[in-house]
Amino acid sequence: MFIYALEFKVRDYECDLQGIVNNAVYQNYLEHTRHEYLLENNISFELLHHQGVDAVVAHIDIAYKTPLKSGDEFICKLYVRKEGIKYVFHQSIFRKVDNKICIKAKVEAVVLINGKLAASHPQLEELVPLEQ
Amino acid sequence: MFIYALEFKVRDYECDLQGIVNNAVYQNYLEHTRHEYLLENNISFELLHHQGVDAVVAHIDIAYKTPLKSGDEFICKLYVRKEGIKYVFHQSIFRKVDNKICIKAKVEAVVLINGKLAASHPQLEELVPLEQ
Amino acid sequence: MFIYALEFKVRDYECDLQGIVNNAVYQNYLEHTRHEYLLENNISFELLHHQGVDAVVAHIDIAYKTPLKSGDEFICKLYVRKEGIKYVFHQSIFRKVDNKICIKAKVEAVVLINGKLAASHPQLEELVPLEQ
Amino acid sequence: MFIYALEFKVRDYECDLQGIVNNAVYQNYLEHTRHEYLLENNISFELLHHQGVDAVVAHIDIAYKTPLKSGDEFICKLYVRKEGIKYVFHQSIFRKVDNKICIKAKVEAVVLINGKLAASHPQLEELVPLEQ
Repeated sequence: MFIYALEFKVRDYECDLQGIVNNAVYQNYLEHTRHEYLLENNISFELLHHQGVDAVVAHIDIAYKTPLKSGDEFICKLYVRKEGIKYVFHQSIFRKVDNKICIKAKVEAVVLINGKLAASHPQLEELVPLEQ
Repeated sequence: MFIYALEFKVRDYECDLQGIVNNAVYQNYLEHTRHEYLLENNISFELLHHQGVDAVVAHIDIAYKTPLKSGDEFICKLYVRKEGIKYVFHQSIFRKVDNKICIKAKVEAVVLINGKLAASHPQLEELVPLEQ
Repeated sequence: MFIYALEFKVRDYECDLQGIVNNAVYQNYLEHTRHEYLLENNISFELLHHQGVDAVVAHIDIAYKTPLKSGDEFICKLYVRKEGIKYVFHQSIFRKVDNKICIKAKVEAVVLINGKLAASHPQLEELVPLEQ
Repeated sequence: MFIYALEFKVRDYECDLQGIVNNAVYQNYLEHTRHEYLLENNISFELLHHQGVDAVVAHIDIAYKTPLKSGDEFICKLYVRKEGIKYVFHQSIFRKVDNKICIKAKVEAVVLINGKLAASHPQLEELVPLEQ
């Protein structure tokens, strides 16, 4: 199901006073994984922006299952589907030591071209599986 | 409906290369608003942690409506409900200049007492409206 | 000596696993204070950037005196001097409850116009005291 | 001279509205490199904290030479010296593609044992070169 995976290690500054990774930081992990996945498909988030094409998150849903701690290594995996005009990234994070699921997220992105909502973008369209 | 409101102003370091506030940063705004709301009710998130009581986010759902930009002032509002063992914070962010809604979020928190899931905590229970 | 002051309150997500504000976060406080100071003088850091004018930090020196903790309120103060082509911001942070100094910083900024180092910029020049 | 090196890649959320890595983020890179270096020497920053031993930054000096941008890969290198009671980390960041220096930093840390300034800590002392 997953078509892309990226490895990370928790950095201490990402942990808060509870001694675990702060909830907001998982969105950083998710975003970086999406952008690296795009890059692997020759799509630069930054370059798109300079061309007037902005992929923006319209909705995010995150279930927090197991907190990551200082020193934890983990893997962020994803797959993509198209739902109407939305590119939906299904993303999960697994702790490396025991493959335990840490978070499960659904990230819905839409494309703005010169600030206007677009139904699709050729480069992003290639990411969507044909068999869908 | 909303019972608490906190004012903010976007800080430039919170904006990313798209020139708008990064998606993850809204979780910072939401968290800070919840913690300030708790403090106003004499509940310290930090103190609870040192007493072995951790309120942790189990699930978050955010609809991104209008992006905030450099210099924008905004208000983060909330109200709380109890659903089973979950304390559910309904939070919205409004841009100050025109009261436009920026994000709408539902944050479900649970309480861990000495690392174990608890059905409730006396101090948090006082936040839940009786008429619910 | 100080000509500008901005009030803040520590946000819990800014604290790390030592339970104190993470060192890097003070740079956020310093930057936000500089940008708000500029805004009060009708200089928008963002607008300058869109005009091809970038004020960039060339050197920073921070002495950490007293750590800030969850819930602390504090004031960030500054004054500006010109040293050669550098705009030097002298910035200190004081804890509000007892006026104790938290950090003392010297931030040297230079101006790039269309990517090239410039000796000065008219708007920024107005910030430098005449009596210097 | 350098005795430790750690590789990174810029993450897009680390870039600000100028399209370059925000100044404060370099402190995150520097801190993570120090903590990974300590871990390689079997010293856990987090574990020390739970034992009442806190290494804290007393002073930092950063010269910003070349900004990092979206997609840049870079290497953060360090070596350590002792100056009085201070453990001084000399750290530089080099852009991978051309080995250009991005920042040069001097980070002075001191050790607090149960909140009191200590002249040294056995584990950290082992990091200091004998020939110094």
